[in-house]
Amino acid sequence: MDLQDYLDMKAEDIDKSLFRTYGTVTGELDRASAHLLLAGGKRLRPAVVMLAADAIGKGRSRDVMPAALALEVTHTFTLIHDDIMDGDEARRGVATVHAQWDQATAILAGDVLYAQAFELLCKSDAGDLEKVRAVVMLARTCAEICQGQHMDIAFASRQDVTEIEYIDMVSKKTGALYAAAASIGGILAGGNAVQTKALFDWGLNSGIAFQIQDDLIDLVASAETSGKDRASDLREGKQTLIAIKAREHGVDLAGYRKETLTDAEINAAIVALEGAGVLDEVHEAAARRVHVARKSLANLPESEARQHLSEITEYFVSRGF
Amino acid sequence: MDLQDYLDMKAEDIDKSLFRTYGTVTGELDRASAHLLLAGGKRLRPAVVMLAADAIGKGRSRDVMPAALALEVTHTFTLIHDDIMDGDEARRGVATVHAQWDQATAILAGDVLYAQAFELLCKSDAGDLEKVRAVVMLARTCAEICQGQHMDIAFASRQDVTEIEYIDMVSKKTGALYAAAASIGGILAGGNAVQTKALFDWGLNSGIAFQIQDDLIDLVASAETSGKDRASDLREGKQTLIAIKAREHGVDLAGYRKETLTDAEINAAIVALEGAGVLDEVHEAAARRVHVARKSLANLPESEARQHLSEITEYFVSRGF
Repeated sequence: MDLQDYLDMKAEDIDKSLFRTYGTVTGELDRASAHLLLAGGKRLRPAVVMLAADAIGKGRSRDVMPAALALEVTHTFTLIHDDIMDGDEARRGVATVHAQWDQATAILAGDVLYAQAFELLCKSDAGDLEKVRAVVMLARTCAEICQGQHMDIAFASRQDVTEIEYIDMVSKKTGALYAAAASIGGILAGGNAVQTKALFDWGLNSGIAFQIQDDLIDLVASAETSGKDRASDLREGKQTLIAIKAREHGVDLAGYRKETLTDAEINAAIVALEGAGVLDEVHEAAARRVHVARKSLANLPESEARQHLSEITEYFVSRGF
Repeated sequence: MDLQDYLDMKAEDIDKSLFRTYGTVTGELDRASAHLLLAGGKRLRPAVVMLAADAIGKGRSRDVMPAALALEVTHTFTLIHDDIMDGDEARRGVATVHAQWDQATAILAGDVLYAQAFELLCKSDAGDLEKVRAVVMLARTCAEICQGQHMDIAFASRQDVTEIEYIDMVSKKTGALYAAAASIGGILAGGNAVQTKALFDWGLNSGIAFQIQDDLIDLVASAETSGKDRASDLREGKQTLIAIKAREHGVDLAGYRKETLTDAEINAAIVALEGAGVLDEVHEAAARRVHVARKSLANLPESEARQHLSEITEYFVSRGF
């Protein structure tokens, strides 16, 4: 089966399970919790949980389905709380929870999902020791994600963020949950320490590459392709790896920090960044992470699932152009 | 040892552990998470975890210390988020987290503690199956607390809340965490199903009695005794059991719904409520919960810890006058 077919199949399984659990809730708070979960999404994190389990033992993905849901539920809880902090009004084509309900309901809706993630994790078909280890991994990961979001917010009022700080932030904000998804799949499937460490490293580095690519997409992709306002990071003066490396290379992006940018202005920025070698360096930074991620997979037995994990990393940095 | 000595001793143990873990943090978000935890508090929930463990097996409280901390950390996370929703500026004699930092930091500070509660739970000296059961119990409890807080907020815009709805709300908002504290202590100490159910019921009913008493204290205690603005519920028209029963008995409290009340006005309200039998009925409602709570303790072996649990329930409804 090729990767896209596998992802499509798993996304369908996940969607079915999510609709079974969250599609029939009636209480106002439960509906607010279910809102973004049911609004779609690529379901990449749960797919990673299942692929990781299959990479440890063929067919183990069935046993970790609740854990896969737990990772999607965790991701959604962080989105709901982030949307409050960032003041975002729309996501996945629907109103954000705090926009559709109110802020208190959104805080609580996120908190409800947070709890359910831990309960779901424990419903996997796995040993108790493995469940406890998975709970500890998810707990540490959630704390990391909060640290990452806190750093991201703090960066908004700074213009001197370093590459090291940026990588630390995206490791926590994006990398940690992919690392958790992969290692939890491995732990619950009975993987040994070397294997679960390999899965963790794969997820962490793939997640970082994913985020660097996200920043590139925001700048380079057309509005239709990315589905977002083009160059929003540039307009907001966001401290992405592109902005950090631009500063290092003396490319002044201050003039692009304004409400709207024409396509001509965005293209001028791209030309300047390309001329200074910034975009090459950013691509190179992502490529290094891809390399580390794929290398760590060598610690897993050869399998179709391992091959898919490798291809996911490739997909993370090739999507969107 | 008498109850107060036991509680003082346990509070000291808890404080020491909390300061060891949270007293030395340096990052901004970690300091925000630690802020309310280190601002004091009676540490009743962790004491209940330890008493419940001792009631299952003498000396088991040492093994569940991390779980005891987990319950205090959980309680504090809910306070931080509630303070945002309620717009409260002070608690435990210090500024609330969102007041001292900002709203985003407060959401994240609560979320960090939320994660740490689950990690702490898993650090107890107990079997893996017992840890998994404790995690599931805490997860369900957190979801319940959110439902309770959501109901509490919804009640603020209603004047027709029934006693059943009120009891449902306080069961979730206050009772659930005492039920979890007691049953988690029992589960981790290896209690059987009858024992942990007895501890759960004890905690749930004691917690409900605690909350009913809180409402009475707000009305009847002097400002110095309660440490709060006196009669704040009356001034805000809050749907407490007192307000609900007043309505049933035709006592009109609408006139007391204003910015400030004199002592004479508050006393007039008390006289009216006493005359109509409202306060007796509210006391009676608390007493019934006390009765159920203490009765459920009969399912535990006789011990000093069991005696202390019984006395805590008594303390819950005798404090504050």
